Order: sequence, then C-alpha cells, then structure tokens
Amino acid sequence: MYDVVTFGETMLRLTPPNFQRLEQTHSFDVGASGAELNTATGLARLGLRTAWVSRLVDSPLGRMIANKAREQGVDTSHILWAKDGRVGLYYYEMGASTRASQVIYDRVNSAISQLKPGEIDWATILNGARAFHISGITPALSASCAEASKEAVRAAKRFGCVVSMDVNYRARLWSKEAARECITAMLPDVTILFTTLDEASTVFGLNAGPEEVARAIADKWRVPVVAITLRDAPSVLRNVWRSMAFANGTVYTGRTIDLELIDRMGSGDSYDAGFLYGYLTGDVQKAIAYGDGLSAIKHSVPGDYTWVTPAELESQVKNVQTKIQR
Amino acid sequence: MYDVVTFGETMLRLTPPNFQRLEQTHSFDVGASGAELNTATGLARLGLRTAWVSRLVDSPLGRMIANKAREQGVDTSHILWAKDGRVGLYYYEMGASTRASQVIYDRVNSAISQLKPGEIDWATILNGARAFHISGITPALSASCAEASKEAVRAAKRFGCVVSMDVNYRARLWSKEAARECITAMLPDVTILFTTLDEASTVFGLNAGPEEVARAIADKWRVPVVAITLRDAPSVLRNVWRSMAFANGTVYTGRTIDLELIDRMGSGDSYDAGFLYGYLTGDVQKAIAYGDGLSAIKHSVPGDYTWVTPAELESQVKNVQTKIQR
Amino acid sequence: MYDVVTFGETMLRLTPPNFQRLEQTHSFDVGASGAELNTATGLARLGLRTAWVSRLVDSPLGRMIANKAREQGVDTSHILWAKDGRVGLYYYEMGASTRASQVIYDRVNSAISQLKPGEIDWATILNGARAFHISGITPALSASCAEASKEAVRAAKRFGCVVSMDVNYRARLWSKEAARECITAMLPDVTILFTTLDEASTVFGLNAGPEEVARAIADKWRVPVVAITLRDAPSVLRNVWRSMAFANGTVYTGRTIDLELIDRMGSGDSYDAGFLYGYLTGDVQKAIAYGDGLSAIKHSVPGDYTWVTPAELESQVKNVQTKIQR
Amino acid sequence: MYDVVTFGETMLRLTPPNFQRLEQTHSFDVGASGAELNTATGLARLGLRTAWVSRLVDSPLGRMIANKAREQGVDTSHILWAKDGRVGLYYYEMGASTRASQVIYDRVNSAISQLKPGEIDWATILNGARAFHISGITPALSASCAEASKEAVRAAKRFGCVVSMDVNYRARLWSKEAARECITAMLPDVTILFTTLDEASTVFGLNAGPEEVARAIADKWRVPVVAITLRDAPSVLRNVWRSMAFANGTVYTGRTIDLELIDRMGSGDSYDAGFLYGYLTGDVQKAIAYGDGLSAIKHSVPGDYTWVTPAELESQVKNVQTKIQR
Amino acid sequence: MYDVVTFGETMLRLTPPNFQRLEQTHSFDVGASGAELNTATGLARLGLRTAWVSRLVDSPLGRMIANKAREQGVDTSHILWAKDGRVGLYYYEMGASTRASQVIYDRVNSAISQLKPGEIDWATILNGARAFHISGITPALSASCAEASKEAVRAAKRFGCVVSMDVNYRARLWSKEAARECITAMLPDVTILFTTLDEASTVFGLNAGPEEVARAIADKWRVPVVAITLRDAPSVLRNVWRSMAFANGTVYTGRTIDLELIDRMGSGDSYDAGFLYGYLTGDVQKAIAYGDGLSAIKHSVPGDYTWVTPAELESQVKNVQTKIQR
Amino acid sequence: MYDVVTFGETMLRLTPPNFQRLEQTHSFDVGASGAELNTATGLARLGLRTAWVSRLVDSPLGRMIANKAREQGVDTSHILWAKDGRVGLYYYEMGASTRASQVIYDRVNSAISQLKPGEIDWATILNGARAFHISGITPALSASCAEASKEAVRAAKRFGCVVSMDVNYRARLWSKEAARECITAMLPDVTILFTTLDEASTVFGLNAGPEEVARAIADKWRVPVVAITLRDAPSVLRNVWRSMAFANGTVYTGRTIDLELIDRMGSGDSYDAGFLYGYLTGDVQKAIAYGDGLSAIKHSVPGDYTWVTPAELESQVKNVQTKIQR
Repeated sequence: MYDVVTFGETMLRLTPPNFQRLEQTHSFDVGASGAELNTATGLARLGLRTAWVSRLVDSPLGRMIANKAREQGVDTSHILWAKDGRVGLYYYEMGASTRASQVIYDRVNSAISQLKPGEIDWATILNGARAFHISGITPALSASCAEASKEAVRAAKRFGCVVSMDVNYRARLWSKEAARECITAMLPDVTILFTTLDEASTVFGLNAGPEEVARAIADKWRVPVVAITLRDAPSVLRNVWRSMAFANGTVYTGRTIDLELIDRMGSGDSYDAGFLYGYLTGDVQKAIAYGDGLSAIKHSVPGDYTWVTPAELESQVKNVQTKIQR
Repeated sequence: MYDVVTFGETMLRLTPPNFQRLEQTHSFDVGASGAELNTATGLARLGLRTAWVSRLVDSPLGRMIANKAREQGVDTSHILWAKDGRVGLYYYEMGASTRASQVIYDRVNSAISQLKPGEIDWATILNGARAFHISGITPALSASCAEASKEAVRAAKRFGCVVSMDVNYRARLWSKEAARECITAMLPDVTILFTTLDEASTVFGLNAGPEEVARAIADKWRVPVVAITLRDAPSVLRNVWRSMAFANGTVYTGRTIDLELIDRMGSGDSYDAGFLYGYLTGDVQKAIAYGDGLSAIKHSVPGDYTWVTPAELESQVKNVQTKIQR
Repeated sequence: MYDVVTFGETMLRLTPPNFQRLEQTHSFDVGASGAELNTATGLARLGLRTAWVSRLVDSPLGRMIANKAREQGVDTSHILWAKDGRVGLYYYEMGASTRASQVIYDRVNSAISQLKPGEIDWATILNGARAFHISGITPALSASCAEASKEAVRAAKRFGCVVSMDVNYRARLWSKEAARECITAMLPDVTILFTTLDEASTVFGLNAGPEEVARAIADKWRVPVVAITLRDAPSVLRNVWRSMAFANGTVYTGRTIDLELIDRMGSGDSYDAGFLYGYLTGDVQKAIAYGDGLSAIKHSVPGDYTWVTPAELESQVKNVQTKIQR
Repeated sequence: MYDVVTFGETMLRLTPPNFQRLEQTHSFDVGASGAELNTATGLARLGLRTAWVSRLVDSPLGRMIANKAREQGVDTSHILWAKDGRVGLYYYEMGASTRASQVIYDRVNSAISQLKPGEIDWATILNGARAFHISGITPALSASCAEASKEAVRAAKRFGCVVSMDVNYRARLWSKEAARECITAMLPDVTILFTTLDEASTVFGLNAGPEEVARAIADKWRVPVVAITLRDAPSVLRNVWRSMAFANGTVYTGRTIDLELIDRMGSGDSYDAGFLYGYLTGDVQKAIAYGDGLSAIKHSVPGDYTWVTPAELESQVKNVQTKIQR
Repeated sequence: MYDVVTFGETMLRLTPPNFQRLEQTHSFDVGASGAELNTATGLARLGLRTAWVSRLVDSPLGRMIANKAREQGVDTSHILWAKDGRVGLYYYEMGASTRASQVIYDRVNSAISQLKPGEIDWATILNGARAFHISGITPALSASCAEASKEAVRAAKRFGCVVSMDVNYRARLWSKEAARECITAMLPDVTILFTTLDEASTVFGLNAGPEEVARAIADKWRVPVVAITLRDAPSVLRNVWRSMAFANGTVYTGRTIDLELIDRMGSGDSYDAGFLYGYLTGDVQKAIAYGDGLSAIKHSVPGDYTWVTPAELESQVKNVQTKIQR
Repeated sequence: MYDVVTFGETMLRLTPPNFQRLEQTHSFDVGASGAELNTATGLARLGLRTAWVSRLVDSPLGRMIANKAREQGVDTSHILWAKDGRVGLYYYEMGASTRASQVIYDRVNSAISQLKPGEIDWATILNGARAFHISGITPALSASCAEASKEAVRAAKRFGCVVSMDVNYRARLWSKEAARECITAMLPDVTILFTTLDEASTVFGLNAGPEEVARAIADKWRVPVVAITLRDAPSVLRNVWRSMAFANGTVYTGRTIDLELIDRMGSGDSYDAGFLYGYLTGDVQKAIAYGDGLSAIKHSVPGDYTWVTPAELESQVKNVQTKIQR
C-alpha cells in the first residue's frame, strides 16, 4: 500500500562533464531521469511510501534505471519488463554565461511508448494509495500512452487518490492542439495541476499573470489546486525562483529565492514532490513552502534527484542555508 | 580523387571505464565507431586519400562523428546530412577473466538506415578511385540500405575499383538467409572478401578449415582474393591472432601473434585497412603482413582507431615491438 | 517473507584508482563492502527474496550503504538505525606483479559493533525464511556482536532455516582461540560451512588436504555440508580457482578456472551466494558449479558485487565465456 | 580556394582541472591553442572555407595539433612538417575570486620559430582567397618569423585579400619598441585591425578613449577598419564585455554583455572570427554583432574553440540565451 | 631552529567531486587537513622555517599526511609516530545555492587524541623559535590533549615565543563551558588571539560588535592582539570578507573583499598564517593586510592550502587580481 | 650530513591515461621524473638521509618538482634556483601487446643544462656523506653539465664517498663516442657501476655475456663493483627480470622474477636505490637482493617512485608477495 504512485518514462541522461559542449566531449555522465520518477524519489526521500510505474526493457540499461529508483527507496515492483525494445535517452548540454543549456531527446520507440491500456494492474497498485502523480509527458509519448494515461488518471480518481498532474509540455513530443485536447480531457479528474505561464499560454491559450491564469484554470476545469512556478533567468547560472498557488478561492505565494545553478534538471519535478508532500502532510501554504524549498535544493545538486532528508528540507524551509555546518 | 572510398554506418560507442559493467557505470567514454569508417581511418593514417560516405543527422552527435572522421584525415565531404532522425549507438561492456565483452546495439532507425538508392552521387565520388570498401553491415541496416549497397558495389566495379568487402555478419541485424542472398548477389563484383570461419559456416554454409573455405568461396563466386582471420581466445584479455588468404590458386599465411587486449573493437576493420594498404601498394603477401600488423596494434589502443604512422606499421611488420623506445 | 536473510557489517570501501598505492593517491573510489551484504546482493540478483540485517548510523554514509543494498534489490527494512556512532571503513590497495593487495581496516566502534542481543526482531524477520547466512566476521566485531550472532544462528535454526556460515577468519579482529571457541559453539546449528585450508588450520587446528579437512569438520561438528575454496596465486593478477565440498559422505569437486583479476574483493562472498543459490534450487553439485561460476565472474568486476543475471550465470556455468558477444 | 587563410603558431595548452593551481595538479587537460588557429576554427564552423598555415614537428604532438584543426574543419594541407624541433606549449592556471588566471609559456624554439621567409607557397595558398588573418604573435616568435609575417601580409595584399590583424601584444615575446616597429610596418597593408586600449597605449603610444584611439590608428596608418574590444573584470569569473569599431568615419558600437567565465582563452580570437565572418557576409555593424556574440559564447566553453553552428550564433546575436532549450 | 611551530591534528579530508552530495558520490578527493598544519603550510610557503608537531599512526594514511606537510616545506621531524591507532578523517560536502556546505567528522580515537603531556620534547623544538601557534581544536580532542596543549602553551611562553591561538570552537568536540574554562586558562600566555563574533558569544559570553568584543577580550585576559574575522554569506558561493584587530589600544581594519568560493576550507587558517607572517615581519596593520590577502586567495584554491608565493601575496595585498596574467 | 647525495635532472613526465596514445589523449597525468631523483626517493623511503642536487627554474613547475622530492623525504635545500629558463619534460606513451611504450623528450635548454662547474658547493654538501650517485644522463645534458659531473665525481671521491654511477645511455642526448669518452674518464673514481648488456656494447664496445662484460669493466677501469640488469620482454606487459654483479673476483646473482608491468619507468633507478641501500647496510649479495626486490615493486606502481617501506622491501626480498594481506 503506497502513499503516492507515479507513472511515466525514465530515460538515460547523458551529460558531458565540466560545461563541455556535446560535440566536444569525450565522456558522458550517466543518470536515470524522468519527470515522474524524479518526483517519486523526492517523495520517497521524505519518508512517503512511493511506487513508480513504467515499462522498461530487461537489459543492463533498463535495469540500471530500476536500480536507481530502488536506490532512492522507490518501489519498482510494478514495472513492466519488456523483452525487446529500447531505453529512451537524452543528451543534456549544460550551458553557462549567454549559452543556454540544451536537451536533445532520443526517446522514440522506447519500451514505455509501446505500452497499451489494460496492461497495468491499477486496481492492485492504487488500492489504498493517497495520491497519484503523472505529467503531460506520459500521454505525449504515443497514442497508446495517451490512452494508458487517461486510464490511469480515471483509476486514480476512482480509488479516491489526490490526482496530481504537471503539464510539462514538450513541443518535440506533440502539438499544442494534441496536448490541449488530451490534458483538458483529464483535468476534471485532477486535484492539483502544476504549470507555468508559458505552458498556460501554449496549451491552454491563457495569456495573463499567474493569479489570473491559475484562477482561470481552476474555474474552467474545476481543478481544486493550481500551482504555477515562475523562473527568471538573468543568466544561465543565476536564476530567481518564485511560485504561487490558487486554491479554495485563495492565492498563496512563496518566497523569492536567488539560485546558483549547479544542475537545474529535475527542479520542477522536485517542486512537485515538495508540494505534494506538503499538501499530504499539511495544507496548500505548506505545500508551496516545501515545493520551493525542495526545488531550491535541487538546483544545487548534480543529477535529477535531491538526496534530501526530511530534516534538511525543514531547515531549508525555515531559512535558506548558506553558512558551512560542522 | 580518392585512393579508397568506404561506405557504411558509424555509431556513437558508449563504454563504461575500467572494466565496469554497463549496469554499474556512472559514465561512458564516447567514441565514433563503425566498420567502414574504422577501415577508412586506418587507410588515411597510412597516407592514402580516403573518403567515407554515410548519412548523418545534423546534430551535435552527427557532427561529432564527422569531426572524428576528419580528425583522422578522412574526407567527409560526401556525407549526406539529414535534418531529422537519430544517431545510432551501441553500448560496449569490456569483459575480463571469464566474463566476455558484450555489445548492445541501439541503432534502429538511424539516419543511414533511411538512405535510399540514388541519393549518393557515386559517379563523382568513385571517379578515379582505386578501391571501394564496404562490409556486410551496410546492406543489413534496412531494405533500402541493401539496395543502396548493391548500387554502390556495382558502381565501384563499373569505375574499375578494387571492390573490398568484409562479411561482418551481425545476427541481430538480419537472418543468415537474408545475409546469404544479399551478399552472394554482390560477390561477383567483389575483388577481396574478408571473412571468418564462423561467418563462412553461418552465411555461406561452408564448414571446413580456412584453406578449404577460402578456396570454396573463391571458386564458387569467382572472388579473386579471399582473406580469413582466425582468433583464439584462451582468456578474455589474452588472444592469439592469425590470418591467411587465398588468391591466384595460392595460400598465403601470416604470423601467429600473441595479443594482450586493451580494446579489441575495430581490430577486424584494422586488418581490412592494413590488408588493403598492403594490397594496393604491394601484393597479397604484403597485404597479410600489414593486415596482421595493423590489427595487432589495434588491440593495444583504446577506441576503434589505431592512430598509427606508416613507419610504426612497417616496424611492427618487421618485428613485434615489446621494449621501450626512447 | 524472504528466501535468504544475511546478517553482518558493511563498511565503506576506499580504493585508490589505477593500481596506485594508498600513500600516493589523490582520490578514492567508494563502495559499500561487507561479506554478508555481498552475499545478499548475489542472491538478490539471482532472483531470491533477500534481506540484509545490520546496524547503521543515520548519516549520509550510513544511508549510502543502505542505498547500495537497495540498488541491488536487497531488502533493507530491518536495518537498525543509530543516531550516533560511526560507519566502519577500510582502505584497499590493489597490488600487481609481486606487490600484494592489502587492506587496512578502520572499523573499531562502528555502529554494528555496539549492537546488543535482543535488539533485532528475528522472529519477524526469519519467519518463513529458507536460509540464513552469516560469516565469522560478525561475531568478531565485539563481545556483544558475538552474543548477537549466536542468538541469530539459534533463531535461524529454530525457524528451520538452512544455516550458512563462512568462517572468514580475520586475525585483526580476534585471536584464533576466540574464533575457535565462538565458531565451534555455533557449528552444531550450521547446515553449510564455507572455509579455506588456511582457516581450517588456524581456527580448527586441522592441517590436511581439502578432502580430509572437510570430512573432519563434518564429522566433528556434525556439519551436513562443508565447502572449501582453493586459490593459487602465481601472480597478483593471475590466480587459479577451485573448490570442493563434502556432504552426505560424498566429495564433490568443481572445475579449475584460470582467473584474470580485475578486483578480487567479494569473490569468496560471491562463491557463498552462488553455492547457496545452487543448493536452494538444486543440490550440492549444482551448488559448487554456481559458486565457482559466480566467484569467477566476480573477479572480473570492479567493486564487491557481480551485477549478474541468472542467464549470465547459467551461461558461465556451462562454459567460461571469452569471446565477444554481440 | 579558401575564403580565409590564417597564419601562426599553435601550442599545446596544459590546464589543471577544477581550478587547481599549477603547482598542485596531478593532471593536465590538453588542448591545441593558438590565436590564428582559434580564429580559423571559428570561421570554419560558420561555414567558410578556411585554411591554417603553420610549421609543426612530425611527432605525435605536432600531429595532435593538426588533427584538432582538421576536426574543426580547418584545412591543414599547407602546414610545413619539420623532422626535428619541438612543439611549443603553455601552462594555463585558471583563477577565481581574487586570484587571477595566469599563463606560463614554454614556446622558445618551437618549429614555427625557425620558419624562414620563402618557405611557404603563398601564391598557391592565397590565390582566390577573400581574407587573410594574422596576429602580432606570429612576427614576435623570431626574427625570421617577423620577416615571414611581413612577406605573408604583402602577399595577401597583392592577392586582393582583406588583410586582418590582431595586435595581440605579448610582452614576454618582444619589447614594445620591436612590436611597434614591426606592426606599424605592416599596417599600411592591413584592412582590419583588432586591438585593445592597453595595447594601443603600449604598442602605439595612444592613450585615450576607444573612439579617439580607433580614429587615431585609422588616420595615422590608413587602416580602413579598427575594432577595439573592451573588458571589465569586476571579478575573475564575472566580466563585462563591449566592443566598438571605427570605419568610414563612423563609430559602430555593440551591446554590453555580462559574462560568466567558464574559460576565457580564445575569446579575443573568437571575436576576430565573428567580426570577420560578419564583415565578409555583411558590414561593420554585422561584424561587431557577430564578434560580440561569438566571443560571448566562447567564454562559456572549455578550451579555445566555440564549437558553434551558424544558427546558434544567429540566435545569440538576436538575444542572449539563458533559458534551457528542449 | 624554527621561525614558527604549530601543534595539532591533521585528518584525511574526503570530498565528493563536482558539488555532489556525500550520499551520492562514487569517489572522494583526498587531502590532509588540519587547522594548525594549514597555518604552518601558509607560513612555510611565505619563507618562514616552520615545523608542525602532531601524533600520527605509522600507516600509509599517517605517512600520507606527513608527506603532504613535507611537500609544502613544513618540517615533520618532531611528529610522534604511533604503532597502532587510527587516522582521523572528515567528510566534506560542498554546497551551492541555498544548500550549505557541511562537514561530518570521524576523528574520535585518532592517534593524537591519545597523546599525553610530557611526550613532546618542547625544549628542543621551541628553543629559538619566534612563534608558536595552536587552535582551540587541539585541547578539545581529549582530556590528555587539553593537558598537552596547556603544557605546550606554557613552554612556548617560557621560550619567549609569540603565542598565537585561534579559538576555532567546535561544538561537536566539547561543550562551550569546557572550551571556556580551558581556553581562558591559556589566554594569559597568549600574544595573538583569533576569533569570530559567534565564538566570542559562545565561548566568552561576549555579545557585541567586533570592536567591543576585541577590546573586552584584550582587557579581560590581557591579550596583546585580538583579531576578529567577519564573513557575510549572501549565498553559498558568494561571500564577503572583512577582518579587524585590536592592539595597543588601537583598532585596525582591513579591506572588504568580495569572494567567489571555490573551496572555503582552510580560509581561517590561512588568515592566521598571513596575519602571523605580517606580524612577525612587520606590524599589526601589515598583519591584517596579509591575513586578508592570504585568506582571499585560499577561497579560490581547491584543498586546504594556498600554494602561494611571497610575490603573489604581495601583489594580492596591493590589489585584488582579476585580469589574466601572461 | 647525508647518507647519500644524488645529482641530476628531473623533468615533468606527461603520460596519457589508460594506455591511450599520445596523439589520442585529452589529458596527461603529471609526475616528476629523473633518474637520480628516482634513486634518491628510494633511498629516502628506506630511511637513509638523502639529498638531491639539481638546478630548477623558480616557477610553479620547478617548484612542483622540488615539492615532490620533499614529499618523499628527499632534502632539496641544495637545489640551485634559476630566475629564467625552462623545466624539461617528456611524454610517455604506455604500450601494450605488440605496441612498445615510447618516450619523447623535450628537455633541451632546461635549467640544469645551463649549470656550470663551480656553481654547486660540493664541499658543504658531500662533507660526511657516505655515497654519491649520478647517472650518465647528467653529463649528457650539455658540455657544461659534463664538466660539472666530472667535478662532482671527483669531489665525491675526495670526500671518501662510495661513488655510484648508472650508465643510463641515452642516444638522443649524445653519441656513443662522446658517452664513452666522458664516462670512462670518470670510471677510475667510480665504486659501483650499473649497466646493461646493450649499453656495454654501445658505450664500452663489450659484446659478451653478463659475467664476461662485468669482469671486463671491472678489470679495465678498476671498478670495484659492476652490476648488470637483464630484462626479457616476451610482451609489453610481461617482463622477466634478473640481475648479477661482479665484485672482488666473485659473481653474484639474484632471483629471476616474473613481472606484470603497471609502469616500468624508474625501475632501473629503483634497482640502483635498492642495490645501494643493500650495499651500504650489508654486502654485494644483499645489494642484489634489495635491488631486485625494489625494482620488482616499482614495476607495479604508477609513476616513477616505489612509495615503499623498509618492512615491505624486506618482506619482498624474502618472498614475492602475491596473496592479499589483511
């Protein structure tokens, strides 16, 4: 019986070390990276019983991904193992100064993209679960993944889960029209929606400030909690982070945090994890504070995970930590 | 105007450092690896004007492959550049002791697999060329690649090239029946065929000693020169190398060389390069000696290339070098 | 409910890269290394439900050890977490040529050394378990660990487990007299005993060939299965491996295997894992074959674990693998 | 037939990793670094046919330099290869905070320093070329290099090239008097001169603001285009970049760009490349914009090259890029 | 005969590379780190004859520490070598952004903690020495170390040394009461005391601004020179540094320096070294300037040492250096 | 007062990691390598008071060399420090299989090559010394070095030292005629001469077996002890080592040792160190045993030094060590 179940793809992440360009490197650092697994790791590190559901090839590379989930304390017993197929991957070039970071995906035909509705035993997995989390990437992977995502969201709703969704719009995976149709079809079952102003504009056609956008989504699709993350990027390695949420007719806001970027991958997923943790163990205000805090920590950690302890996150939520501790 | 033109796929090669297993590693060493490019680099290092023809995506990863060809002195001006698609790759786990090295391919749908006959301007490329080299991997990549390979071999023959082919049978790419049909269709145009006893058995259905096999191929398909490489593997890191050739009714044999394996990838391709170099600048006996010598050096060099100079190879052909030189 | 439960200490292992001497190095490779966890990882990789029981400090270093156990699929839910104390560690200098590898322990006062009898809930853990494994290191850690080890062995016997013990005598931890007294006190409950001729001489005072020694132990302490591993070391990086077992009045022998050593740490523990797996899924002859096979693979893998799959081990048991697989 | 030909020395660059001091390091990262080659690589990456002319020893180190030029798409067929001599090198310690970066040269008696006038076949090389680029380092290498540089500049002028020169004054190589005499002797043939205010003061005795200095040089030596780069260094890792040019009686200015420094080596050379590219494909205003853009990117890339694509540079010229692209 | 003698513990320092978290890393960078050795290395690099006194185990790890002291030019001939025992160590996780750096000590029962008064031959060591330096860590290691520290301070006073002490309060090692009692007992023999406002509050119960605190210490315990370092930490990687001193009734102040942190470990010890050097070769004003300068450099250098030359420090004292030097 | 003084050049040694070829590498491992310093480090590690005399540039690179000597316990107080000049260096490509290791020197005009007779205060340095060691490389560096070497040898003889010389013939540095003339001029003052059969043939014109050669040298130039090292190289990574000596009319022989080569640089110098140590603390038979033992260990250690302890060497001399020690 799980506190939270997440569902989606995890890829190998291949990163040149030391700010090298992709074309220049002689080695890649390897990680296992995927929005929903990233969120699951954050929740598991904070002490919640968390499972991640996916489909992987039974090869050293597929097993590497499951190993890394287990290493973080995430349950992997419901992964579907495929005999054939491939492990999706992406190349991540870390930028600096005026050169933006960039991601090149090579995920077409990954094992999960061939997943079909009915293959996952949601009744067993979600029975007793408190929350279910998915991002807009999972339905974008293939037509059958879109169906499987809808099936999962419906099942989660049926089992009484808090249904959490991050829009995570990826233009390389599907058109904005396809995203809008599929995501809005699921929204009525969603409890918490995470998005950005860019996504709100592209996917929902909403062009306004965060408060207006959140309110509009909440109103139009009856989403109880809408959270919006806001990032300024004065330089590649210096960002400014804020977030807000709209729930129960109220606007909640978090702190503004100056960030030094060691690795920004997974920071949105960590926000989701911190927010969900705060929400499940408190309220929306706590959710924002823990979302902001976990995302801030993530920016300082190489790879997609935070490796955080509950005590660390609590200390972070109280005060940004900048002085050495010994 | 080139001395030798080669045609085939090059992939990214991802290798865990220090004998780590794939599932265990935290980084991959990156190389550009492909049978026909490997052979081209050997020929270019030995001073021949060499071009490699292929199809690549215009991404940092595709450009990385072309860069590495250029770095070796191989002409890349006839590569076809695709806007979309992917770069094929493979994972290479280096074994030791009783654990064999293994290769996991992830090359389906690479840019070259979508190459169609007629897209390469062989008339321009092969005009004046002395030799053309291809391996059995190129036609195995897709049905259209099989057609494009046949087109290339026919063109090479028409332009008077020495046509060189390495069987390089890959069971993961096609069935032995498909390989047999396609390769034997090209054999009448082939001048030099490289193969092994395993391949002769699988692809040609010939089960016998090297001399008999070579003679049978030469007789049946009118191949002027048949070269067979022979490898014993008493342990993963200790191999014994020999080769022989049959031409003009004569059996030619090389030395037996004890090898310490630093990296065996590309050693067959280096044999082809050394053989072709010896053949184009001498005769079959020189071809074997230079093939054996270049392959032996390759086993000692990380990555797929030998980085050899003509003087080094000549010294190696005279005497295996084991004492420090200063 | 577990197939196998193991109990003991895991330390950080700090290894200079590239054959550097300890005094010379500028970095250490880090691993989590401990006889009983090593054995557990082997069993888990082969598909058995395996738990490892220990006591760890709740620090990043303690958590790192538990993470690595989880990564291998080993259950860690019965680890006792201490607020204070330290993580034991050892420094491992890899030798070559005529310079032997050496280990320097720094494990005094580690968290597990302060474990007391009664603190582990063996009734819950061992209920339904098929086997329990411990090595002679656990009782050697402290007087209270000796008591806790006896308690564990008695409990395992009571719950009907196959009780497996590896002598693993460490002269730095206790005297041979203390080892003899403590281990022989547990032997009547032991089903399978793993030892070497050196240990048999030191700990049991038995100086003879493997067959005589195994028979003597079996007779004197009523141990149903006695397995002896035999290693020759013509050089640091080249060893020859054999093992034998005595059970039911019969002598079983395995193959002689020539080994190239990439990393020999954990090879005895892998033997135990392979043996136990073979024993639980077959008989003593299978046990030896799988013990030899898993130990042989271990010698080729950096770190203490084999990262093996059942299919790999089966292929190894059939035939030592030395040719590249693709 | 080339678009641009550059002429000068390339050295091995040896850099301690991770901000280590030279005296402290246990390894060096290796690159091939030289003002004129750096500029050539920028031009080649932007699609111009570019050759680099130099003199190198035919050793692994000399060949490494030529390989790296080829890897970038720079033509190396006019390099003179010496049997004896040495490859120049320099040690580069990357600073931070209040500790400045520093360079220690070890380039005396490098192969190119022994080049004599008449040894390079400029008639063949420059025939049809649109531009020729040299820096003040080449004549500073030796008396014969000074003569060879003058010969090259005269030839370039005679063949109708845009003659581009970067003052690049190096006090360790020659006195300011020698620099002034030699450089001013070449100025009447120069089309574009790159310099800084420090150099203008030291070499030309001009102490004034950028506009006055540029105008003075243009007037005194009839240089059609004078470009001045301006760098503020509030800290070692944070610089502010601007540039301006004077041509046709007009002052052109670029943007002010805040830089995070990953590696500043080659940033001036990249400015030259971007400027020349903009000039040859547009006008002085485009030249400044492309010079600023390419230099800004360079500061973010390890090593001396930018590995840029034309599309990247165009995007940079339009807008500094700080947000992740996927 | 030494200029300065320092006395204290040095540990192995284990640091994950590249901002990785302790729990995440696969390797540790190794250094030898200890307050009094760090200060000694700074003094030795500046040309003073400096000895470091300690107690070490005669193992590769103990020898590594002594080697690194010798490498810096510090005399190690008075180290006591123990047959048994352990080398203390600590794990250092480098933070960024809002995640603070943290230190985990594992130093209990290190060889020096078992040092007893009377074991060091201070009469020989201090004869003719100009200064003696110790920090509050040495007495905190054990009761016998507290006695040995008092013995050392008394001896230094007796031999006419400038007695320098850095409070360096470590809450993990002793209570504030114990620290207060032990340190104030030594203060009457102390010439120069280094402390911070936090320590002044914790250890001395003084809560005020730097001037008041310094004056209060000077008055109450008759300490001729009291130096206080002041650090602001707007972010983990950006700090602001200042220091001041009170002596002879006068307040001395240094510059305010903006720091980019590459590695802040040892920066306080470097301040002590620079201060002492300035004091011994000049006066209090010089002491502050050289303390500030050396500490600023330290922040830019990986590891605990500055590897500085006298000329570098002088140049730094004159002007913060931010532009490349070549 | 020293036990042994050695005199010669030390260079930076730049080695590509992991068997990469020079032309292929992206980094160099750095060491400080020189025949006479290597020998000094061996002697210092064995407990003798040892000084190394040389001339170095006062740059980070020169200081790095002196630091590394100090780190080993070698006295560096008699090094002459030059303001200008360069640090010699060499590139070392480690071979394998049939590709020999190779060394490329870049040492012309190093600081020591400009050393003149009279600049070193031998009277102070050698006063009371028991032995002086030099190799044939020092006089080969320049004409003035040849004079300075002769001066040193004469002084050593005058001060009653055991004068030890290793022929170490380097064909790249001088002709065999020059070597013969210079070395034979010094031989009458030499107590112990180290050489090989190749050198005996080239430099002394002696072509015979080791016993005849040693006897001939002893007779012709009145050398009391002549030691000859004998190496077979069946493969690059497998060598067989033997040595013998002739003294007092007697032939002494050591063991034959099978070697696995991790790094063979400095193995001859380690032989000299072990031999000298054995000779100074025993007799010629002990000298051979310790020379063989230390050289064997050296082959297993990366870099030029052995990092040995006296206890390790004694254990090695008794028995080649191949089994793990814990």
